[in-house]
Amino acid sequence: MTEKKMIVKPSTLPGFMELLPAEQIVFNHMRDTIRSVYERYGFIPLDTPVIEKSDVLLVKSGGETEKQVYRFMKGDSDLAMRFDLTVPLARYVAQHMADLTFPFRRYQIGKVYRGEKNQKGRFREFYQCDIDIIGRNHLDVVNDAEIPAIINDVFTQLGLPDFIIRINNRKLMNGLFQHFGLAGRPEILKAIDKLEKIGPDKTRKELMEAGIQEDSIDAIFRFIQLKGSNDEILDGLKQAAIDNELYQTGVEELTRVTRLIRAFGVPEAHFALDLTIVRGLDYYTGTVYETLLKNYPEIGSICSGGRYDNLAEHYTKEKLPGVGISIGLTRLFYQLNEAGLLGEMKEQVLTQLLVVPIGDTLETCAKVARRFRDANVITEVFLEDTKIAKKMNYANKQGIPWVVIIGDEEVQDGLVALKDLETGDQERMSWEEALKKITGS
Amino acid sequence: MTEKKMIVKPSTLPGFMELLPAEQIVFNHMRDTIRSVYERYGFIPLDTPVIEKSDVLLVKSGGETEKQVYRFMKGDSDLAMRFDLTVPLARYVAQHMADLTFPFRRYQIGKVYRGEKNQKGRFREFYQCDIDIIGRNHLDVVNDAEIPAIINDVFTQLGLPDFIIRINNRKLMNGLFQHFGLAGRPEILKAIDKLEKIGPDKTRKELMEAGIQEDSIDAIFRFIQLKGSNDEILDGLKQAAIDNELYQTGVEELTRVTRLIRAFGVPEAHFALDLTIVRGLDYYTGTVYETLLKNYPEIGSICSGGRYDNLAEHYTKEKLPGVGISIGLTRLFYQLNEAGLLGEMKEQVLTQLLVVPIGDTLETCAKVARRFRDANVITEVFLEDTKIAKKMNYANKQGIPWVVIIGDEEVQDGLVALKDLETGDQERMSWEEALKKITGS
Repeated sequence: MTEKKMIVKPSTLPGFMELLPAEQIVFNHMRDTIRSVYERYGFIPLDTPVIEKSDVLLVKSGGETEKQVYRFMKGDSDLAMRFDLTVPLARYVAQHMADLTFPFRRYQIGKVYRGEKNQKGRFREFYQCDIDIIGRNHLDVVNDAEIPAIINDVFTQLGLPDFIIRINNRKLMNGLFQHFGLAGRPEILKAIDKLEKIGPDKTRKELMEAGIQEDSIDAIFRFIQLKGSNDEILDGLKQAAIDNELYQTGVEELTRVTRLIRAFGVPEAHFALDLTIVRGLDYYTGTVYETLLKNYPEIGSICSGGRYDNLAEHYTKEKLPGVGISIGLTRLFYQLNEAGLLGEMKEQVLTQLLVVPIGDTLETCAKVARRFRDANVITEVFLEDTKIAKKMNYANKQGIPWVVIIGDEEVQDGLVALKDLETGDQERMSWEEALKKITGS
Repeated sequence: MTEKKMIVKPSTLPGFMELLPAEQIVFNHMRDTIRSVYERYGFIPLDTPVIEKSDVLLVKSGGETEKQVYRFMKGDSDLAMRFDLTVPLARYVAQHMADLTFPFRRYQIGKVYRGEKNQKGRFREFYQCDIDIIGRNHLDVVNDAEIPAIINDVFTQLGLPDFIIRINNRKLMNGLFQHFGLAGRPEILKAIDKLEKIGPDKTRKELMEAGIQEDSIDAIFRFIQLKGSNDEILDGLKQAAIDNELYQTGVEELTRVTRLIRAFGVPEAHFALDLTIVRGLDYYTGTVYETLLKNYPEIGSICSGGRYDNLAEHYTKEKLPGVGISIGLTRLFYQLNEAGLLGEMKEQVLTQLLVVPIGDTLETCAKVARRFRDANVITEVFLEDTKIAKKMNYANKQGIPWVVIIGDEEVQDGLVALKDLETGDQERMSWEEALKKITGS
């Protein structure tokens, strides 16, 4: 061709994660693990569009969120890319209500978009992995007890180091504030939310600056710094002379939820009642959760959520209470990778077997590959005509554990030479014997 | 609250598919099946960003494609949403070349965006499921023989009715045209491409109107209408007195590929050499594929692709030949659903077991659920306090096959009542017996 091609430097946008193959395999392993746990609890998959009508998607938002949204015109249409999976869920449930069975248990794993400030560890395109249980008019509080079991299964199966699910109840907290004459003071929750980051002294100072009396602050601190086992904390909450209905409801809910969390199989070491957990100011109305890696508190919560009263008030007059959690997978993967915590997950490989022809044995190699693939062994055939050393090098680079070598002799004898790349052992055997060795059956 | 909430009618954009749960489960089953076949052949997953820099993504495109692209500004950045998975692959391979092992076998399953004209069966957001094998400087033609085996496995595993992979070779075709003095006449390929739709008479007419001599048209038709078994067609091609190097190379490639397709396990009934297959005018340079459902030709090709010479000429000076295919899953799902061809896939359910408490037996129910989930049985517990009939109705609506009922008596005796919703049979037994019955082990 005479046409001179323009060459553009290939690059991606800042804040858009793109992984190399080995990392991508680990990432997918994490995503698959989360999905399989969500499914094991009977959650149904949804897959809503990434782009929605701006007037529908942005009905509730404002301020910081709205500024971050990827919004644009296409023809006459005002479009916006989803910035979370909760608003699309609300829209979905309201839109398809007549076709859904309640309680509606759905999971969604998908990418969302936020034009965040560009900085290390912040992503503009990232995966959220959400589950929610939605009731129509009513959803029993016992649903709140199943959520920690799901969180526990996810992080146990991911093999993450010591994690702890911290649980609080917003009714209990709001009742407490009512009791102390401090209702409707969001700055109190805001200050408590910062306790872990800034410490008790600075939190006290913030509360005093907000005009809270010192004896009220002392009273609040006696509660939020309750220490002990989960049962000891529940006892402490019950024994406190708080004559407030909301508080009492909160304590009852927390007691009921705690008992059932145990029945659902969460070990005591993996969940802790903790009155410093706030999780946002407005949305949650009952149980709230966050999840920390005990030895890496700087990573922050890796899975959070809670109970809300009304999912879709902007889309329907029906009341839809629910409870849910979200895992920000892109950020979690990034953080674990940075902290060196991907551990055994890094040993994930996909291809188990490379079939290597020597000489003109490709037809037999193809037939061998067919046999192994039919037995669900992930199999590649090295199809390029090159030196044997290069072929073996390919297997090594890709971390493929087994190689089957087929030369003219093997074709004649109906055998293969099976090589274990870890030990270096090589042995001639029948196809079926090789299959048994590789599958360990 | 005194604030009056604005209620917006929940709706999605035209051309953006959104499925109800039962359909979504079928869709995911199809997506998972495709993925698992792709992985079984050793393809590595990629997950490139949905949004890229416009100057990078649109370096090659123009005309119709460019008009369809979702392109917009965010701050100072000129952004575009991917319209296929091939351009991002080219960018990826060029960008990360030093970190990849060649031949590079990758699959990607993801959504792409095109502002198509709004009409039934056309989607603006749709899944593509692609595989490509990329060589560095060289990629042996035998790679082309593995692709039909993958297509065959995908559609066999999806349980689709009679499908046929039609295969041609562009070298052969171009050599033929050279031989007849018709090289560099794209209108010939264009006309042949329409043969199936408009029939031979209209195709002849188009060729005559393009100024092709009648004897040349006759000669071309003798080739493209070759009928018979794959071997008969190969024989016909070899016996034809076409003294052209490109043609000879094409025939050799097709012969070699055919022999190996068989070795890779594709039954003769599932692939057919067919000289009417063109698949686009510029991009492909060797083997080309398309896949039809024999009794539903109106659906068109459900999986197409071919061999190309240079994947990433706009991003690197390195020559990257490859071969690949794409399945447009959103459209395929839509078409199969419309044609009533989803068949047994529609019977997919996720939840296998509903645990139903009668009275205050929730703790035991939670423990039973734990036991079953640990054994990988997808299990829900009915957590709402309502009538037993409503609970059973939930199981029926969701198509859940098994129900375990636990009342006070079952708690006392350490048993469960297992009900098979298909037969209506109900029997008391131990947890482990119920587990055996459900898992069929």
